[in-house]
Amino acid sequence: MTPSQRNSPPEDRPVAALLAPDIVAMLDESPADLATETEEIHPADLADVAELLDRPKLSAFLAALGPSRAADVLEYLDDEIRTEFLESVTPREAAELVSEMTPDDRADALEEIDEEHADEILAEIPTEEREEIERLLSYEPDTAGGLMTTDFVSVSADMTVESALENVRAVARSGKKEAMHNIYTTDAQGRIAGVMSLRELLAAPAGAKIGDIAWTEVVSVSPSADREEVARVISNYDLVAVPVVSESGHAMGVITVDDVIDAIQEEQTEDVQKFGGLQALDEPYMQISLFSMIKKRGGWLSILLVSEMLTTTVMQHFTDEISRVVVLGLFIPLVMSSGGNSGSQATSLITRAMALREVELPDWWRVIARELPTGIMLGIVLGVIGMARIAAWQWMFEHHIALGYSYNIKTAAGVYVPGTWRLVAMTVGGSLVGIVTFGSLAGSMLPFALKKVGFDPASASAPLVATLVDVTGLSIYFLVALLVLHGWLS
Amino acid sequence: MTPSQRNSPPEDRPVAALLAPDIVAMLDESPADLATETEEIHPADLADVAELLDRPKLSAFLAALGPSRAADVLEYLDDEIRTEFLESVTPREAAELVSEMTPDDRADALEEIDEEHADEILAEIPTEEREEIERLLSYEPDTAGGLMTTDFVSVSADMTVESALENVRAVARSGKKEAMHNIYTTDAQGRIAGVMSLRELLAAPAGAKIGDIAWTEVVSVSPSADREEVARVISNYDLVAVPVVSESGHAMGVITVDDVIDAIQEEQTEDVQKFGGLQALDEPYMQISLFSMIKKRGGWLSILLVSEMLTTTVMQHFTDEISRVVVLGLFIPLVMSSGGNSGSQATSLITRAMALREVELPDWWRVIARELPTGIMLGIVLGVIGMARIAAWQWMFEHHIALGYSYNIKTAAGVYVPGTWRLVAMTVGGSLVGIVTFGSLAGSMLPFALKKVGFDPASASAPLVATLVDVTGLSIYFLVALLVLHGWLS
Repeated sequence: MTPSQRNSPPEDRPVAALLAPDIVAMLDESPADLATETEEIHPADLADVAELLDRPKLSAFLAALGPSRAADVLEYLDDEIRTEFLESVTPREAAELVSEMTPDDRADALEEIDEEHADEILAEIPTEEREEIERLLSYEPDTAGGLMTTDFVSVSADMTVESALENVRAVARSGKKEAMHNIYTTDAQGRIAGVMSLRELLAAPAGAKIGDIAWTEVVSVSPSADREEVARVISNYDLVAVPVVSESGHAMGVITVDDVIDAIQEEQTEDVQKFGGLQALDEPYMQISLFSMIKKRGGWLSILLVSEMLTTTVMQHFTDEISRVVVLGLFIPLVMSSGGNSGSQATSLITRAMALREVELPDWWRVIARELPTGIMLGIVLGVIGMARIAAWQWMFEHHIALGYSYNIKTAAGVYVPGTWRLVAMTVGGSLVGIVTFGSLAGSMLPFALKKVGFDPASASAPLVATLVDVTGLSIYFLVALLVLHGWLS
Repeated sequence: MTPSQRNSPPEDRPVAALLAPDIVAMLDESPADLATETEEIHPADLADVAELLDRPKLSAFLAALGPSRAADVLEYLDDEIRTEFLESVTPREAAELVSEMTPDDRADALEEIDEEHADEILAEIPTEEREEIERLLSYEPDTAGGLMTTDFVSVSADMTVESALENVRAVARSGKKEAMHNIYTTDAQGRIAGVMSLRELLAAPAGAKIGDIAWTEVVSVSPSADREEVARVISNYDLVAVPVVSESGHAMGVITVDDVIDAIQEEQTEDVQKFGGLQALDEPYMQISLFSMIKKRGGWLSILLVSEMLTTTVMQHFTDEISRVVVLGLFIPLVMSSGGNSGSQATSLITRAMALREVELPDWWRVIARELPTGIMLGIVLGVIGMARIAAWQWMFEHHIALGYSYNIKTAAGVYVPGTWRLVAMTVGGSLVGIVTFGSLAGSMLPFALKKVGFDPASASAPLVATLVDVTGLSIYFLVALLVLHGWLS
């Protein structure tokens, strides 16, 4: 395959589409050649091909590749297909494949398998390795402990550069899958003391002591750090790997940047879905069962519906006013939605700023100091547009189009009172200022409130803030109406 | 600094807070020692300290560090502070610092500076380097060309492993800032022919030809690929660097994973803000001027307000019905918001699935096939809750609480007609089924429609879909009311 063929991005998996027919043909005709013929192909591409095969072909394909290469392919395979496959083969076969994976992928693969199967597979794995897997499985999957791999390269700080390099070459030649982005140095107590990149090791003068070359500032994370924290450290320091260090200063594992990117993507998917007002799906949209999807969407929709019922109570309270000045009712959807929209803007800004740590809990008053003038200004802009719309329609209705309608207030006798449309416009304009200001404040404070009581601030959703703002918005509208129109409403 | 001190994440920048007083003291007392004293500290941490200093102190600090180290710190410095600083020193000083940066950061730094200053700085840079910078500046910043660095290591495929390794060590020792995550091999025409990691180079048997060791499948991107595509390739193949290859097959540069992570974060900030219903800020929340923020929020708010005015038109159309059956008006906010909420859920699911390429344009009918049953089911759930609420309140009002209110229809004479609350409940329940189904369909199709006409599907926002759904939702509500209550409305 020439590079120019690979210039295009994996949209629609073009590599897999190209490879699949050849691989299927080879499986039928010369499975023995398959491993050699595909040895230059990236396992991610082979995994894409594997996803196109049916179960018997998939088994034959992985068998033809041999355990080490098959394990690479399994690491890139769709979780669901991998899980199904590992559950369908004998525990011994599964154990052989799993043992060839890197420790972090091994734990991830076993985590997805149902417990009974996983225990059977674990029973086939030698004790020492099994204990390591079980230790990794004991960490929450979205913490540093759950992301780390335990095979990495560390050398004593006393070594010379030449012997450290020999050490590293021996590990590289062993064919094991140790993380080797960075080399860590340890002190006499085995605690982590320094770090250097392979490049720095290569650049080091022969004969120097490794401890003198390594950086003594080792950026690290604790095993309980959550994945957002890990991502922040990796991105802040431009790292390709970060060690996970225990309280005693011992390196427990290493998190590599590829796992962090996956974690960032998953975290973002969760945040976007939560902001959209549903429980995170945790599965691709096209793969989740309709039942699970309805459950994950229906929960919040029902809660929001029940909360929104307060608007009915508010409306009920003002029934007399609405029936006296019917024109008031016309603008209810308009003013309410503006509150929800301004709230949604503020919530999206603040949840994101919090995720990026641009804004922290104690900054709440600085946010209010920005949202208050912003909300008032935006409210004035919208209020002016709203009033201009009413004035324009009124002018057209009165002078140009005989639609039989007017924004003037109608008396009980059915007569429009000239000029009263101005009062209606003032009500709409005035309440828009209040509602947009309130929406901006409520939307920006919701993530703070959630964080304060211990929830993820990213649970603040556009529908949630809209619902919160709707009830207050409606009340603001009627209160402004009572002030402006009090002569007409009593 | 011991590793245990660095165990905590950079929340509130603890490292900078610890270092700053020492550095300020050193600047006053012994600036000559500063470079040596801080040589073990990560430039990201020094940049955090630099951000705490005032202008004269910042200049003194960077001068004390020396140009190479100062350039490292500038790469990590907040964009705005860096730009201000580079504009405040002489073009010659700025040119010296900029020349020490990696080519991609060099271009990024100059891009932020106002054109006049940038031209003056460029004039101080030797012709060859200047032309390279100008070439990088010619790419859009969010394409592969705009992300790549042009200094990377490539060797001829004919070389032996030993001489390639000597080559690499020489580059590493030169102290230049070449990207060295991977080594690329080139054929006789200078086209990219293979790739290997430093680790693979170290593991290779002595005497082997480099072309036989390298992987011939080179995953690459074209210079015009957008940053989302680059991120997808890097994440799909678990890469730490990806070459940017021209149509003729020549490597033009390399994109490293740290820049891709930054690009992913920026892209996601933009998407979250767009989904919240505003123009992407492009600046941190706390740093953007109030005027810019109001502009970026006010635009969409005004457009949404104007669109939402259609609800007033719909309401106007049904004024007679509302005044005849006043109880109808009570449930307008309730049913409308349910449409917006279900639409927001569907939009968040589909825009994210599109960003991850789980769903592509031709999949629209498969999405409809999922959203239609989901929407109907969710609508039935909400409809039942809505009807149960009406029944429960009616029962309480009639039998237990003398609130003087009823969901029964009131005649013109002011008399409640017993049992008619059931018709009202049917109207609310039936319209909820219709509205939630329509909301789910409209919300899921909006990103497809935007993509189809050439917009970013991530421009679909929760407020936009809510606004779209509000007008239709209101119409559905009144149509259902006309069907169920036709005897009472005419």
